Amino acid sequence: MVSFNLADICRHVQGTVHGDTEFIVEQLKSLEQAGVQDISFVNGEKYLDQAKASRAGVLIVSSDLVDQLKDQCIVLEVKSPYLAFAILTHLFAKPPYNQQGIANTAKIHPTATIGQNVTIGDFVVIGEDTQIGDNSIIHPSVFIADHVKIGHSAYIESHVTISEGTEIGDYVRIHANTSIGGEGFGFAPYQEQWHRIAQLGKVRIGNKVRIGSNCSIDRGALDDTVIDDGVIIDNLVQVAHNVQIGSHTAIAAKTGIAGSTKIGAHCIIGGACGIAGHLEITDHVHLTGMSMVTKSIDKSGLYSSGTGLFDNLNWRKAVIGFRQLTETPINKLVKQLNLLQNRIEKLELEKHTDTKD
Amino acid sequence: MVSFNLADICRHVQGTVHGDTEFIVEQLKSLEQAGVQDISFVNGEKYLDQAKASRAGVLIVSSDLVDQLKDQCIVLEVKSPYLAFAILTHLFAKPPYNQQGIANTAKIHPTATIGQNVTIGDFVVIGEDTQIGDNSIIHPSVFIADHVKIGHSAYIESHVTISEGTEIGDYVRIHANTSIGGEGFGFAPYQEQWHRIAQLGKVRIGNKVRIGSNCSIDRGALDDTVIDDGVIIDNLVQVAHNVQIGSHTAIAAKTGIAGSTKIGAHCIIGGACGIAGHLEITDHVHLTGMSMVTKSIDKSGLYSSGTGLFDNLNWRKAVIGFRQLTETPINKLVKQLNLLQNRIEKLELEKHTDTKD
Amino acid sequence: MVSFNLADICRHVQGTVHGDTEFIVEQLKSLEQAGVQDISFVNGEKYLDQAKASRAGVLIVSSDLVDQLKDQCIVLEVKSPYLAFAILTHLFAKPPYNQQGIANTAKIHPTATIGQNVTIGDFVVIGEDTQIGDNSIIHPSVFIADHVKIGHSAYIESHVTISEGTEIGDYVRIHANTSIGGEGFGFAPYQEQWHRIAQLGKVRIGNKVRIGSNCSIDRGALDDTVIDDGVIIDNLVQVAHNVQIGSHTAIAAKTGIAGSTKIGAHCIIGGACGIAGHLEITDHVHLTGMSMVTKSIDKSGLYSSGTGLFDNLNWRKAVIGFRQLTETPINKLVKQLNLLQNRIEKLELEKHTDTKD
Repeated sequence: MVSFNLADICRHVQGTVHGDTEFIVEQLKSLEQAGVQDISFVNGEKYLDQAKASRAGVLIVSSDLVDQLKDQCIVLEVKSPYLAFAILTHLFAKPPYNQQGIANTAKIHPTATIGQNVTIGDFVVIGEDTQIGDNSIIHPSVFIADHVKIGHSAYIESHVTISEGTEIGDYVRIHANTSIGGEGFGFAPYQEQWHRIAQLGKVRIGNKVRIGSNCSIDRGALDDTVIDDGVIIDNLVQVAHNVQIGSHTAIAAKTGIAGSTKIGAHCIIGGACGIAGHLEITDHVHLTGMSMVTKSIDKSGLYSSGTGLFDNLNWRKAVIGFRQLTETPINKLVKQLNLLQNRIEKLELEKHTDTKD
Repeated sequence: MVSFNLADICRHVQGTVHGDTEFIVEQLKSLEQAGVQDISFVNGEKYLDQAKASRAGVLIVSSDLVDQLKDQCIVLEVKSPYLAFAILTHLFAKPPYNQQGIANTAKIHPTATIGQNVTIGDFVVIGEDTQIGDNSIIHPSVFIADHVKIGHSAYIESHVTISEGTEIGDYVRIHANTSIGGEGFGFAPYQEQWHRIAQLGKVRIGNKVRIGSNCSIDRGALDDTVIDDGVIIDNLVQVAHNVQIGSHTAIAAKTGIAGSTKIGAHCIIGGACGIAGHLEITDHVHLTGMSMVTKSIDKSGLYSSGTGLFDNLNWRKAVIGFRQLTETPINKLVKQLNLLQNRIEKLELEKHTDTKD
Repeated sequence: MVSFNLADICRHVQGTVHGDTEFIVEQLKSLEQAGVQDISFVNGEKYLDQAKASRAGVLIVSSDLVDQLKDQCIVLEVKSPYLAFAILTHLFAKPPYNQQGIANTAKIHPTATIGQNVTIGDFVVIGEDTQIGDNSIIHPSVFIADHVKIGHSAYIESHVTISEGTEIGDYVRIHANTSIGGEGFGFAPYQEQWHRIAQLGKVRIGNKVRIGSNCSIDRGALDDTVIDDGVIIDNLVQVAHNVQIGSHTAIAAKTGIAGSTKIGAHCIIGGACGIAGHLEITDHVHLTGMSMVTKSIDKSGLYSSGTGLFDNLNWRKAVIGFRQLTETPINKLVKQLNLLQNRIEKLELEKHTDTKD
């Protein structure tokens, strides 16, 4: 196991050490799990109690907490402990798979172009005319078809399928068992049967894109399916044919986006959202989990769907109430109430008048 | 790249050419992307403006639009431009993987029967007694277990798993990373623990079925899980043990069907639907996306669930309103309103009577 | 095909045979499909009619139904027919893949430790320092990375990916195309871009855990993602980084659990549920399908979400009604109604008083 000198760590996160800069740090750990040779971080004042209880030898903190912890351990003062943590994870990360070079069991087409310093695992298949850029890592049992272009510094995990013609930029990470460039779900109904429409477009993925495991990203029907730079996608996500996802948008697990929908940049799409097809969602839209989007969204902001959780008995009552909304819209009740209110006021006024007589 | 003579294209779609039948068409493209050597299609009058702006050398149109476009480019007149487009995609499609024959790295059990003109990619494993029909294409790294029967003209993409005893008809297409015939989720609770029930049934798939990527189709517990002819299934779909899906039904991405549910023929199931187990859904049922089906449906028609999208502030109000439905059902309010209305009418009548006195 | 003597079968399920104990049973079948040489079971009085119509040579029944069926066929009397069925499925189950030993195409790192009587299929890759316990079965094309510990009697299907450092107990079954130990979706936003946080934790899976196909179980950020003994998980399930699942909890297909949520023991989570992150769900909680959990649950019981299915026309009315709840909360209507009721009562009282004068 590799360990680090605190001075080195400090340089990585541009911080200030309150204590011994030669301290040897073994691991980056949570506050609960850290031991005396480990480093941890305090993500704000609400974690102060846990920080005080921690055995960590070094704590990464923001300026306002330095005095409260500097007697307990070495303190590394930074602007943002969370960001420092994010940076340091890369220092302490173990390589996921320690193989080097190109496995002799890999089947690489003679016309394929493999860059410098590329790692290709056992049983990888790479097709005709395909290009893999420098410093890329491809885990075992990946299948990359013909005419695929992948930039440099790719990271592609085991059992990924990348279909014909796919274009992928630099620094792209694709997690295990994902399918990129599969045929979109294009079928024409004719005489009560479904007739397959071959999908002639492809998938184009920009730079610094991350795609999770068990995702399906389909090729376009005529035009391409496009994922812009900096997009991050979680696991089990469905991206249908001709979807376009704008730069730096984040999509959480289990969300599905139907065909030809265009999502803007810097969006945050919660988990298990369902977005219908042929819509347009502008930039900076946030959807909470399980949102159901059936119309275009042209205004940035936070949107939600759903009715929450109930204990089962009350839920049945709520569902009955919801069903009753089909027979009696609220607005109709409101109208009726207001009319009755008018009639009561009239009666009261007449009563008052009578009394005065 | 292969190109086509317009006369040939015309024969494929049974149309009429208004212009040079010897025109050489290079690619089938969208209206926006088409260049002067390409062909595109106009899917109805609502696309007329885009058609007029298109640079396509040839436009496929219905009869009513011929005159409006024939001065702009060559026009190919057909009954249904969408259907013509569907047919032509196959003409222009590139083969997804250009390999021929049986890869020498494939491991095929000596008792397996492989038909004529079958393509089998690298690292495919085929089990004991398994049959693969003529003209089938199996991409690299597919695993087909023992006693599997696959008909002719199959198309099976990379990383598919087909488990023991599965029966598949002719012209079946299965996309990447899908699992067919895995064990159903059968567990008996006993003394607070779960006891696995081995699943002795299998999966039976008819002819001309299409299954997307990252799907799970489980084998039956005793009887089989059955998918009838012409069914089309999108990506990331769950089909549990003993489900039956009727012919020519279409199921969009992310839908899940729980065990022993029987779905009729010619149904259209939207994306991300959840269908409970042990139900029966008749023919010609349409479900919109994210529908929640907990009872059998015995009448054809269009069905829906959900409450749509709100900006987050209004959504919180709506959820509060929904919760209040558990305490105060609408019908109770309606009753109370009507009683008050009666009492007001009585007061008004008495008032009127008094006045007359 | 193997067949069994009824006396043997009887011993397995601790029952009593009413009839010929030497009867040879060929297969375990459903009531509808059973033939005269087969055995089936009657899961309660509601199946009595189907039992009477069955051609099964042997019926497994509870004591109360013995007399009604013993003239029709041999009857095997047990305490719980369903449990007897569960046990017998293992007797009649065919091995899913008939290979023995270690395939010579498998790539096993020299420092890996493989136990006794382990089956490893073609094109399996096993990494550095990894341990596989006795009697384990690994299907073709599985990738197990470095430093993975797997106990004895594991069953791992084709195309599974098990990432670095994963720890798995004994008797664990993982179905096809699942990814265990992939990197969690950890990203820090900084200057409008997403910065990847390497995930230094791992996945720890206990004994007798079952994980379905096409699942994604992510490694933890610092601490581990933990699945306790006896947990059963269906297909297409998402378990995010740092989730903890308590012992003997069952999770149905398509459910997603977001990061750092802790689920108790003996829970039953329905299909397609969405559970937000950083929550705590106590023991013995049942969620019906498609439940939406956004707050911790500290009380055992049955919980639900959703509004059910409507024919599309009524659904549109219900959604309009739901939208109107944002403008007019029910409680406000109730208040207004009650005030009007008071004013009417006052008018009626005054009327009554007047009349008496």
